[in-house]
Amino acid sequence: MSQKNNDSVSIIPLGGIGEIGKNMMLVEMNDEILVVDAGVKFPEEDLHGVDLVIPDISYLLRNRERVKGIVLTHGHEDHIGALPFILKKLNVPIYGTKLTLGLLREKLKSHNLLSRSYLRQVNPGNSTKVGSFKVDFIRVNHSIADACALAIHTPLGAIVYASDFKFDQTPIKGEMTDIHKFAELGDEGVLALFSDSTNVEREGYTNSERQVGQTLNNAFENANEKILVASFASNFHRIQQVFDMAVKYNRKVALSGRSMLNNVKIGRELGYFEVPDNLIIDINEINNFSPDKVVLLMTGSQGEPRAALTRMSRGDHRISLNKGDTVVVSATAIPGNAKAVGHTINQLFKQGANVIYEALSGVHVSGHASREELKLMLNLTRPKYFFPVHGEYRHLHLHADLAKKVGVLKNNIFLPDLGDRIVLTEDKGYTQGTVPAGRILVDGLGVGDVGSIVLRDRRLLSENGILMVVVTINSKGQVVAGPDIITRGFVYVRGSEKLINDATERVEKVLSKCEEKHITEWSVLKSKIRDALDSYLYRRTKRNPMIMPIIMEV
Amino acid sequence: MSQKNNDSVSIIPLGGIGEIGKNMMLVEMNDEILVVDAGVKFPEEDLHGVDLVIPDISYLLRNRERVKGIVLTHGHEDHIGALPFILKKLNVPIYGTKLTLGLLREKLKSHNLLSRSYLRQVNPGNSTKVGSFKVDFIRVNHSIADACALAIHTPLGAIVYASDFKFDQTPIKGEMTDIHKFAELGDEGVLALFSDSTNVEREGYTNSERQVGQTLNNAFENANEKILVASFASNFHRIQQVFDMAVKYNRKVALSGRSMLNNVKIGRELGYFEVPDNLIIDINEINNFSPDKVVLLMTGSQGEPRAALTRMSRGDHRISLNKGDTVVVSATAIPGNAKAVGHTINQLFKQGANVIYEALSGVHVSGHASREELKLMLNLTRPKYFFPVHGEYRHLHLHADLAKKVGVLKNNIFLPDLGDRIVLTEDKGYTQGTVPAGRILVDGLGVGDVGSIVLRDRRLLSENGILMVVVTINSKGQVVAGPDIITRGFVYVRGSEKLINDATERVEKVLSKCEEKHITEWSVLKSKIRDALDSYLYRRTKRNPMIMPIIMEV
Repeated sequence: MSQKNNDSVSIIPLGGIGEIGKNMMLVEMNDEILVVDAGVKFPEEDLHGVDLVIPDISYLLRNRERVKGIVLTHGHEDHIGALPFILKKLNVPIYGTKLTLGLLREKLKSHNLLSRSYLRQVNPGNSTKVGSFKVDFIRVNHSIADACALAIHTPLGAIVYASDFKFDQTPIKGEMTDIHKFAELGDEGVLALFSDSTNVEREGYTNSERQVGQTLNNAFENANEKILVASFASNFHRIQQVFDMAVKYNRKVALSGRSMLNNVKIGRELGYFEVPDNLIIDINEINNFSPDKVVLLMTGSQGEPRAALTRMSRGDHRISLNKGDTVVVSATAIPGNAKAVGHTINQLFKQGANVIYEALSGVHVSGHASREELKLMLNLTRPKYFFPVHGEYRHLHLHADLAKKVGVLKNNIFLPDLGDRIVLTEDKGYTQGTVPAGRILVDGLGVGDVGSIVLRDRRLLSENGILMVVVTINSKGQVVAGPDIITRGFVYVRGSEKLINDATERVEKVLSKCEEKHITEWSVLKSKIRDALDSYLYRRTKRNPMIMPIIMEV
Repeated sequence: MSQKNNDSVSIIPLGGIGEIGKNMMLVEMNDEILVVDAGVKFPEEDLHGVDLVIPDISYLLRNRERVKGIVLTHGHEDHIGALPFILKKLNVPIYGTKLTLGLLREKLKSHNLLSRSYLRQVNPGNSTKVGSFKVDFIRVNHSIADACALAIHTPLGAIVYASDFKFDQTPIKGEMTDIHKFAELGDEGVLALFSDSTNVEREGYTNSERQVGQTLNNAFENANEKILVASFASNFHRIQQVFDMAVKYNRKVALSGRSMLNNVKIGRELGYFEVPDNLIIDINEINNFSPDKVVLLMTGSQGEPRAALTRMSRGDHRISLNKGDTVVVSATAIPGNAKAVGHTINQLFKQGANVIYEALSGVHVSGHASREELKLMLNLTRPKYFFPVHGEYRHLHLHADLAKKVGVLKNNIFLPDLGDRIVLTEDKGYTQGTVPAGRILVDGLGVGDVGSIVLRDRRLLSENGILMVVVTINSKGQVVAGPDIITRGFVYVRGSEKLINDATERVEKVLSKCEEKHITEWSVLKSKIRDALDSYLYRRTKRNPMIMPIIMEV
């Protein structure tokens, strides 16, 4: 399947297509494989108990000698989060910008992988060689600093991997998406564009990060007590704006929440923040200042149960929330978190805080391009082939429609499945076979050991609980102890005595019939017990607990 | 606690405050109790396996002779859904408009309660006496036909229960919210206003239902194959618009989904639809028509797993979806359903359908008033006391703020907890004690038998499954069979043999130690088994299954 020909290049998506998260794509040329990003996805509700979802990299492991390196576009979890799991099995060099590697370094340290990893820093605007791939790192605006698009050069033209981006015409630190570079690549001839579909359902342009500054300014101006700001810990521009407001309104800043403390530390070490001496205080010093002289910058913008703001909202934080405090939730609720965020905001209001949150305020802007910006990216780069990425199928479909409107030929737009190998040549692009791809579930220390059976059982257990029937028989098949019925998560024990007694009687009858007929095979006994209870319990309760016959022999 | 005095009236909310759903409120005056609405709430995710949540009515049961009747504002589940459960215990007369009672009748029929229920029809614009309460039914626009606000007359002025409403200036059947009646009540003097907070986070006015007509018209005009429309089955105005478009574009309409079939039947019987003869065909006739001559009107706008559109999206419906078909999802995703709706839309796009859904279209409008309309209701009625209802705490809080801006005195705005008795007099309103209130969980046939312990167990089971340790001992405490370890939802059995063997060995050691020490008490043995496995399993797997020691004695 390898490419012997300079005149073609293969693309294999391993994640981020038909889903939000676990972004990962392979570029193959001249027998060499370049990996772009290696992200995680956070599990949806049906993945009971699962902590993380990572891409299936078995194709890379089978072709490990051909993998030249992993290039990273930015430091968000959905782009770098799978690396600790991957590097344990495939130790190749990793390329990224200063902050991306800074965040990765912390992550690798906690997995004891840092010392044996090869991290190579590239500055935005610069190029690097990975194997024989020449890769340009192109600055883009996003909700994390130091984000880059990539141009991967091939004899057929550049592959532009725009990754996550927006065009912020008035960015916080003056560093705009490098429009000129994209225009230049468009002039030279772009073979293929891979572009972010996250916000393709939004008309117009995404607002500038600077808009948040105005809302923050109003909040600070009107606050008479302490101010709490919850934000994503990786959004350094947002955090810088909070620092700026604190300086302007003469308040000290205390940090709370592990990732906030960590990220601000990393950001300061790497020079991402402009922070006057003595601006940041330890949270224990906060009581040395009057409330109108402090800001708490904290985690919890997603209503995460153990994050700082959430704990504070339920009175479970060392700093208490007081009537008249101002709380700014400077983030949007990620789908799936809306209820938790709403609950936190309810609690904050209940405690008398003045809460400024997404609704009716300009307290958050997205980091992703809206439809006009997506068109601009298409028109700047003028790609021959187009791959909408980073989205569920409807997002990709709408983005493909947009590309058609902008002039990309219908046959040159690809919506592959994960694992499809798309071969691009001078004249055409086509699918040529597939490689293994999918999702690997991480649960605790287990990587890949939770599969469909375990998940099915967890789902069944979550809905109606379990009913265990335990019986001890002797070698002649005579019952010597039990049957006993024990339930968990099925019915409240008190009040259900009759139901359980009736069920036990049914099992006794079944067992004595089996004894009469000299049936001693456990599998038969078990299925007879199940049959005796299954529809009976449903009729009595309209519930279907997992029925679990357990037989012991003495 | 009863009111002996004509100069005061008590309000007791039993639901719909601090939550979305299970709306229910009591008005007490002169020893009589009037109940307003009796709704259900659909369970949030943490209520594993629970089907419905209904209000706690133990106060009404204890005071049953004083309950004069239940008045219903409209036929949505969150206003009438608890009635089957309540009427089983408290059979009082029920008052509502024609459609509200029509929908209720169907519901009571399926619970075998219809023949013994007392349903009293009131027309919008009319009044009725319930005990000594005089209640006006006032037409309002909402996403269901025949919706009413109520004016409950007291010597202190009217209590206006606005319930769910919007001001649609161009409604479908020409029947507008009765602005004049609200103005008149305002002139006469309104004691208290209870108003819908659902959309208080939205600026401006909610769009007219007529806007949807334009979008539908475009969709029908451009469709060359069959058209599928998914909508709430209770939104008769929406359904009428689909009928109108079908007439205009010369298509037949087939219905799919139980509630759609039911509701259209009820609506036609009661005269709510203008439908030419032969417009509606049986779904089995659909193949007698060319695809550009049919519309399927169906359930599934919320991505419900068994609804018609959802089944069609996965190819599990008698009518197949074909490339080029137009699908209109004419609804908004209720929070909590966003992922399921998104998934359905992905699948529809994948099958080549042209999907018109909420994003980038005007295919749905809300049935609830936005901020300007909420202000209008406040200004029309000019209440002395104000109760924001139908919302989580943040909605109520924002609605209270709005009322202050409009001129209601701060001390006259109430955000009670469920069960609080608020006494209103000429001069002041105050809280005086509480009655039992809260949520009763319905799971299958069980009403109230699922409580915190069962839910906790279901949650634990859903996260990491269960590990059962079974052992049979004799009367001397000697192990005669086992210990055996069986798991469900914990780890995939294949590949986990060593873990289970090691765990079994640990239990064996514990048991033999107990035997040596002549420990035979089951509770001690069980806790020793748990101790032996608890932190051990966590260390090995970073998971916490429910550990369930089961001891049998022979």
